[in-house]
Amino acid sequence: MRGRELAFFSIAELSGSIRSRRVSPVELVEQVLARLERLNPRLQAYLTVTGELARTQARKAEVEIRRGDWRGPLHGIPLALKDNIHTRGIRTTAGAKFLADFVPREDASVVTRLQRAGAVLLGKTNLHEFAYGVTTENPHYGSTRNPWDAQRMAGGSSGGAAAAVAAGLAFAAVGTDTGGSIRIPAALCGITGLKPTYGRVSNWGVVPLAPSLDHVGPLTRSVEDAAILLRAMAGWDRRDPASVRCAVPDYSAALRGRSSRSRPLRGLRLGIAGNFFLEQVQAEVARCFGAAVEQFVRLGADVVDVHLPRLAEASEAGTTISLAEATRVHQQAGYFPAQAEAYSAEVRKRLELGAEVRAVDYLAARETQRELQREFAEVLEQVHALLAPTVPVVAPQLGTQKVVLDGQEESVRSALLRFNRPSNLTGCPAISIPCGFVEGLPVGVQLIGRWWGEAELLQIAHAYQRATEFHLQRPPLDA
Amino acid sequence: MRGRELAFFSIAELSGSIRSRRVSPVELVEQVLARLERLNPRLQAYLTVTGELARTQARKAEVEIRRGDWRGPLHGIPLALKDNIHTRGIRTTAGAKFLADFVPREDASVVTRLQRAGAVLLGKTNLHEFAYGVTTENPHYGSTRNPWDAQRMAGGSSGGAAAAVAAGLAFAAVGTDTGGSIRIPAALCGITGLKPTYGRVSNWGVVPLAPSLDHVGPLTRSVEDAAILLRAMAGWDRRDPASVRCAVPDYSAALRGRSSRSRPLRGLRLGIAGNFFLEQVQAEVARCFGAAVEQFVRLGADVVDVHLPRLAEASEAGTTISLAEATRVHQQAGYFPAQAEAYSAEVRKRLELGAEVRAVDYLAARETQRELQREFAEVLEQVHALLAPTVPVVAPQLGTQKVVLDGQEESVRSALLRFNRPSNLTGCPAISIPCGFVEGLPVGVQLIGRWWGEAELLQIAHAYQRATEFHLQRPPLDA
Repeated sequence: MRGRELAFFSIAELSGSIRSRRVSPVELVEQVLARLERLNPRLQAYLTVTGELARTQARKAEVEIRRGDWRGPLHGIPLALKDNIHTRGIRTTAGAKFLADFVPREDASVVTRLQRAGAVLLGKTNLHEFAYGVTTENPHYGSTRNPWDAQRMAGGSSGGAAAAVAAGLAFAAVGTDTGGSIRIPAALCGITGLKPTYGRVSNWGVVPLAPSLDHVGPLTRSVEDAAILLRAMAGWDRRDPASVRCAVPDYSAALRGRSSRSRPLRGLRLGIAGNFFLEQVQAEVARCFGAAVEQFVRLGADVVDVHLPRLAEASEAGTTISLAEATRVHQQAGYFPAQAEAYSAEVRKRLELGAEVRAVDYLAARETQRELQREFAEVLEQVHALLAPTVPVVAPQLGTQKVVLDGQEESVRSALLRFNRPSNLTGCPAISIPCGFVEGLPVGVQLIGRWWGEAELLQIAHAYQRATEFHLQRPPLDA
Repeated sequence: MRGRELAFFSIAELSGSIRSRRVSPVELVEQVLARLERLNPRLQAYLTVTGELARTQARKAEVEIRRGDWRGPLHGIPLALKDNIHTRGIRTTAGAKFLADFVPREDASVVTRLQRAGAVLLGKTNLHEFAYGVTTENPHYGSTRNPWDAQRMAGGSSGGAAAAVAAGLAFAAVGTDTGGSIRIPAALCGITGLKPTYGRVSNWGVVPLAPSLDHVGPLTRSVEDAAILLRAMAGWDRRDPASVRCAVPDYSAALRGRSSRSRPLRGLRLGIAGNFFLEQVQAEVARCFGAAVEQFVRLGADVVDVHLPRLAEASEAGTTISLAEATRVHQQAGYFPAQAEAYSAEVRKRLELGAEVRAVDYLAARETQRELQREFAEVLEQVHALLAPTVPVVAPQLGTQKVVLDGQEESVRSALLRFNRPSNLTGCPAISIPCGFVEGLPVGVQLIGRWWGEAELLQIAHAYQRATEFHLQRPPLDA
C-alpha cells in the first residue's frame, strides 16, 4: 500500500494492513501530519498538534508490531482528542483563554485506555469554549470551519474533532457530549458520532460541563470504526463516580454477526416519536430522514409510531440542569466569578444565568428527567431503537444566530440541541450517521438505543452503512 | 399472665406468651387502649386512635394463632404509626391543618409489611407539622408532652411516637428521620430509636420531607424489640426509587449470637470523633456519655479517637439540602404556596427560605455530602461504630427557643439536630439508646454504624442494654 493516500481508509481496513506490516505506522502518521499541516490552517480543527509525540508513538508501535506484539485494531492508528480531555504533559485548554497554558499532570482515563490500545496521538482538537456551546465559534482560538463549506460552522462543541475526522486529519477522535456535542458536529460534518450509555466511558480527567449529563464518545467515519473505538474506551473506572460496572462486549464481533444476513434488520422494530422529532425540521432534511426510514424498512426493520409526550419538556429540563451544574463546576474550580472577564461574553452570560437557577427548579428538572427515563424505558421495551433527525438543519453559516423553521424563528443553539438533549437526560446511547446531502451539505440520522445496548445500536447503524454510501463521501478539500 | 399489667412488657417477651396462648391479643389490646384513653389526653401522643380496627385485628390475630397460624413475633402486638405514614381508610394528617381530613387510598409499604407480620394498629401519632421540626410543638393538634415531665417537650418530629412508646401506650412505633426525627425524641423520652441505612426501609407512601435524607425506622423500648421491628419493616420495594435490594438478616438471631459471650464486645472498635461530638454538650449529659463509654469498654470494646473533619460542615449542608428539597416537595404536592396561610409560621418560613436556595448551593451541599460519605467510609473501615451523644441536652421546657451551652446561645432546633444530621447525610444506620438520667430526665447515647450493618449495630447496643437498666426505667405517669 506504499505510496497510496491513506487518509480516508477506515480503521477496520488499516488495522489489518498494519498488523500484516503492509502499512507502516510511521509512514501513516507522516502522511496524516502532512495533510494536517496543509489543511488545519484553513479548518482550525486542531488547537495543538503533537507531531513529535505522534512520531515517537508510531515508531514504538512499529517496533512492537514488528516483533509480533500487535495490541489490537487501534495499534498504530493516529487519533485526535478534544481539548477538554486531560493529557499529561500536553496543554489542555478546554477552549478557554485562561487555560491556554494549562498542562495536566495526569491523563484522563480514556486517554490511558487508548494508549494501552496502541493508538497514536495527533493532537488536541478545537471546541466551543469549555464545551459550553454548539457551534465551535471560539473567540480565543478561532472558529472551526466545516470541511464541506468553509463559510459554515462545524457544529459543536466537538467541532474540531468532527472536522478533523471528516477532513482526513485523523482516523477518529474522542469527543464529549452533554447536550449533543458529539452528534451535532458529526451530523453537520457528515461523519459518525456515538454518545454511549451514561456511565459506559469514564469521565475522569475530562473537564466537566454538567456532570449528570456528561458523556465521552467516539467520532469516526464509519460505524465499524466507532465499534473499535468504543471497545477500547469503555469500561468501569473507580475514579469516576458515574462509571458503571457493566461488561463491555466485542462490538466489532457483534457487527459481523448481524450483517451477514440478507435483510439484516428483520425482526427489529424502530420507533418514530413524530410528535417531537418531526416538528420544525427543514424540508430537505426531512426528506433525507424520510429516505433513511425507507432504507431501514428495506433492510427488514418494522418502523412504528411511538408516543413520548414528555419529550417536549426535555429542552427546558436539560437547560436548567446544565445551567446550574455548569456554574457550580466553574465555581468549584475557582474559575467563576474570579475569571469572569476572561470568558467569552456568551459563556459568561450562561454562567451568570446558572448562578440564578433556584434549587427547587433544578429539583423539578431532575423529576422531569426521571419521568422521561420512565417513558423511554417503556417505549424501548416495544422498539429496539428510535429514529430521529440528529439536527433539523444543515450546517448554518458561521455567525448565524437564528434559523427560521416552519415560519418560526429559533436560535441556532436551540435548533441544534433540540433533538439531542433527550438522550443526555435519559442516558440512552445515541448515534448519528450520515444519511444524505442538501446542496453539498451533510445530513445526519440519529438512532437512540436501549441502555447498555450499544452493540445492537451499532448493528442497526452498520447495516445502514453497508447498504448506503453517504458515509463514504469526502468533502471537497483537495479541489 | 391474665390480670397482669402488660403495658411495659417487651415484644420479645410478649410474643412468646402470645404464641403459646398465655397472653390473648384481644386482652392485650384492651389493656393498652384503656391506658391510652387514660393517658393520651395528658400526653397528646396520638392524633387518631383506631380502637375498633385494633380490636378487629386483635381478634383476627387471636383466631389465627389459636388455629396454629402464628406469623412471627409481631403477631398480635399493638403498634403505633407516626401520622405522616399513609394508612388506607385512616386519616393521615402529617400534622398539617389542611390535611385534617385527608384519607389515603393506599397503605404505605411499611404498613403493608407490618400488617402481613400480624401487627395490630392502635393509631396515628402526633408529630411536628410535616415532620419539619424537632419539638412536636404542633399548633394545629396540640404539643406532645414528655412522659418524664409534662412541662417538657418530647422532641421530634416523631414526638408522639416516642411518647407513646415511653408511656406504655404502644409496644413500638414507626417513625421517620430526616435530620434526627427518630433519634431525638427517642433520646428525650428515654427509649430506643433506630434510623436504618438509607434505602433499607421503603419510603413509599410516607409523606416526604427531603427525599434524599428521609428514612423510616422503629421506636421501641429495647434494642431487642427494634431488631424485631426492623426485620419486619425492611426490604426492597420497587415503588421507592431509593430502596436498595439488599438481604435482610434475622436481626433477633444476630443478637442472640453475640450476647452469649462474657465480654460481648471484645474485638470491636468504637470511635469517638471528639472534635465534633463532644463540643458544646451540657455537662451532665457529657457525664452520662462518659459513663456509657466506660460501660462499652467494660463490655470489651476498644474505644479510640477518630478524626472526621468534615463533620463541622454537616449542619449547613444538611440544612441547604432539606430546605430546597422540602420546598420542592410542597410545591409539587400543590401545597405551597397555595396553602401558605394554613401552615404554622415556623414551617411556612422554612418553606419560603427553601424557595430561595440557589441550585449551585444545593449542588455544593451535595458535594459536601459525598465528601462526608468518603470520610465516614474510611473511618468505618477502622472502627465498627462511632459513639456520640444523641443530643447535647435533656428535654427542654415546652416553648423554649434557645439553650446556652458552654456560654454560647444556640437555638433548640440546632442543638437537637447537630449530632444527628451527619447520619442522614451519610446514610449510615444510627441508633439512640438510653444511657442515664439528669434530674429525672433521660439521656441518650448514639451508635453510628456501617452501611447495611444494622445487625452489628444492634448487637453492640443490645450488649449495652443487657448490662444496664436505663432502658427499663418507667416514666412517673401513674403517680
